[in-house]
Amino acid sequence: MNRPTSETSKDVRMRGFARRHTVAAALEWLDAQLQPFDAAQGRPLDAETVALGLAAGRVLASSVVSDIDVPSFDRATMDGYAVDAASTDGADSYNRRPLIVIGDSMPGRSFGGLLRPGEAVRVMTGAPIPRGADAVVPAEFIEVENAARVHALAAVSPDKNVGRSGEDIARGTTILERGRVLRPQDLGVLSSVGHGQVSVLRRPRVRLVVTGNELLPAGSRPHGVHIADANGPMLAALVERDGGVVDFPGLVRDDRQAILDGLTADADIVIVSGGSSVGVEDLAPTLVAEHGELAVHGIAMRPSSPTGLGRVGRRLVFLLPGNPVSSLCAYDFFAGRAVRVLGGREKAWPYRTVRAALSRKISSPIGRLDYARVRLVEGRVDPIAVGGASVLSSTTRADGFVIVGDDSEGFAEGTEVDVWLYA
Amino acid sequence: MNRPTSETSKDVRMRGFARRHTVAAALEWLDAQLQPFDAAQGRPLDAETVALGLAAGRVLASSVVSDIDVPSFDRATMDGYAVDAASTDGADSYNRRPLIVIGDSMPGRSFGGLLRPGEAVRVMTGAPIPRGADAVVPAEFIEVENAARVHALAAVSPDKNVGRSGEDIARGTTILERGRVLRPQDLGVLSSVGHGQVSVLRRPRVRLVVTGNELLPAGSRPHGVHIADANGPMLAALVERDGGVVDFPGLVRDDRQAILDGLTADADIVIVSGGSSVGVEDLAPTLVAEHGELAVHGIAMRPSSPTGLGRVGRRLVFLLPGNPVSSLCAYDFFAGRAVRVLGGREKAWPYRTVRAALSRKISSPIGRLDYARVRLVEGRVDPIAVGGASVLSSTTRADGFVIVGDDSEGFAEGTEVDVWLYA
Repeated sequence: MNRPTSETSKDVRMRGFARRHTVAAALEWLDAQLQPFDAAQGRPLDAETVALGLAAGRVLASSVVSDIDVPSFDRATMDGYAVDAASTDGADSYNRRPLIVIGDSMPGRSFGGLLRPGEAVRVMTGAPIPRGADAVVPAEFIEVENAARVHALAAVSPDKNVGRSGEDIARGTTILERGRVLRPQDLGVLSSVGHGQVSVLRRPRVRLVVTGNELLPAGSRPHGVHIADANGPMLAALVERDGGVVDFPGLVRDDRQAILDGLTADADIVIVSGGSSVGVEDLAPTLVAEHGELAVHGIAMRPSSPTGLGRVGRRLVFLLPGNPVSSLCAYDFFAGRAVRVLGGREKAWPYRTVRAALSRKISSPIGRLDYARVRLVEGRVDPIAVGGASVLSSTTRADGFVIVGDDSEGFAEGTEVDVWLYA
Repeated sequence: MNRPTSETSKDVRMRGFARRHTVAAALEWLDAQLQPFDAAQGRPLDAETVALGLAAGRVLASSVVSDIDVPSFDRATMDGYAVDAASTDGADSYNRRPLIVIGDSMPGRSFGGLLRPGEAVRVMTGAPIPRGADAVVPAEFIEVENAARVHALAAVSPDKNVGRSGEDIARGTTILERGRVLRPQDLGVLSSVGHGQVSVLRRPRVRLVVTGNELLPAGSRPHGVHIADANGPMLAALVERDGGVVDFPGLVRDDRQAILDGLTADADIVIVSGGSSVGVEDLAPTLVAEHGELAVHGIAMRPSSPTGLGRVGRRLVFLLPGNPVSSLCAYDFFAGRAVRVLGGREKAWPYRTVRAALSRKISSPIGRLDYARVRLVEGRVDPIAVGGASVLSSTTRADGFVIVGDDSEGFAEGTEVDVWLYA
């Protein structure tokens, strides 16, 4: 639910979190679940075939070995005249060597005949080298007498100005390794070896279960005691960013069956937003425990302490607090990591970091990890003084966040800290 | 054309580049063309409205001011009992204050009545605060006698554990500024103020004109003297990356009318791949000069020296060499910058940099800018020793590139250099 959830340690204790896991312990459980999907381990999700035009940013499912040479023919690397190199021996501007022009070779249109010593074929850059030729005299070292007869003003050695077949890619070369996130130039290389489509890892399917009787669907004007769903659009965009496919059929009532339908959906990952704590209306944790495994519930962090991690069947389940800031934080710490790893991507956050000095101290108790939103102001890191985890606008005013580990009491003013930049 | 193009200075001089522009001069011309589109100048492309679910990564066309308070009501920030704070004056565990429970307030379902001193309404976090109440006694400071009567074990001051209406977003606040590249949490905030769609800048339309009689369409198996088009798929992915919409109707013959059709297409930007130099088969530069302005032709850089920049009507035109490495380099230096700025994005490259020491020297003549592909090997920068601009696989083996400015003769082994990382 997109509402503020009480997250003080007293409150959480009283309402029944038996113990709170450390972030490290929660990640340890999660990483054990993710290990079979880790690209390095060899069993990620299945592959699917996509057209090259849709493959940028996708993850290659298997290594690609070229079964052809690129180019498949020897070609001129300069404009000029293809010759048997020996025909130019000793040529210089005082000692010109005559050549009989027997034809042209253009890109895509070769000269069909055989070139003999003393003969030349005019070539454009990229054109096939005729049989019998082994070098190109560049145009600026040629004096043209007429269309049929030219003179070489310089000697060339064999192979000079000739790009050999396979110079870009030799047959049998592994051009791209499995697990590669495809770049624009990779698509060019795939095309050049004859691939018009490519086998990539299937994107993990992520079901969003956004609960909360107080919520109106995104696009509604809030009225009365109802608020518009902020978490649905945010989480959908986060999942897409991390390479997942979102299945978000709409808001779900705080109702056992409706939530259970979500938890058992056809998906690799289920993200439940709201109702993740231990109150009577927090149905999801009970349902996960009943129908699967609720491995982690309650985490020593702020915000996001009422987060739960578990499984229902083969699905990984993430119970995110309804507070939008908690939702963002818990997504980034746990759910996003799963989306990325299942899709063959890096475990690490997709955020850049910068290092800069704090303009004010950040305090945080030992035993709790804190996620502090900050701004970068004139090269210094300015913590955003803001109330609770319900203030989503704090994350749009922020440039990023600073993590205070659970072994730290925070950072004094002036300390250099790493800022993770939102993107 | 995706074929090697001769790029030595001698050759280029001979074939007729009157003079070669410096990269700085070419960028100066380009930036003058882009200035009217610069977001800071106020006249970017028109806006279009998209659904929130499609808005991540798009550029906001106008600032968004909230016309509502979020939340629009005062709400509990903890589970407990809403009270008139004065009713708890002096309460502690030895001096309990009795409270008559007159109802419940749940998220999305408020208590309709009026609360009086000495009364309490049970509230869940996020629930509306009843009229007459001004504070919440947290559940752990309540002793429940029965459903109708509880005792406060602690005093609360007015406003305690109450989130005031507008605490997240106050009516009249500018929540997001025009030009913002929308993040996932921005979509949440837009939703919470009642926006189900958002006005974003139109994406620039980019026509790709890929020429070369030797080319086969992507997906074809190269055969004989034909090669498969590498530049089309690569350039399309680069344009998409930079926020443009690609119009790539297929390969174009080296034919005046076919190329002219491309140059006069309904587009903001036209990118011609191949036939950009000064040979007789290089038709595009002549056509741009005849039908518009060929402002820059021939640039003192390697690769990409036969690059051209100009306009045909309102269209910005980029003539990129057919060599795939040149194509990538010239796109990144010139065309990509235009795609980004027209779409309201940053002029700068979308590449991260790292700084590391060279494992071998890089040499480059004064007067020419060099684009050197490099690998990062054990923390050192390893220049890729590779033949020509036709070897696209050099850019897939590379982790990134190092730029040697035209005022530099290169870098000695061990020099710390900036590496732009391909992504």
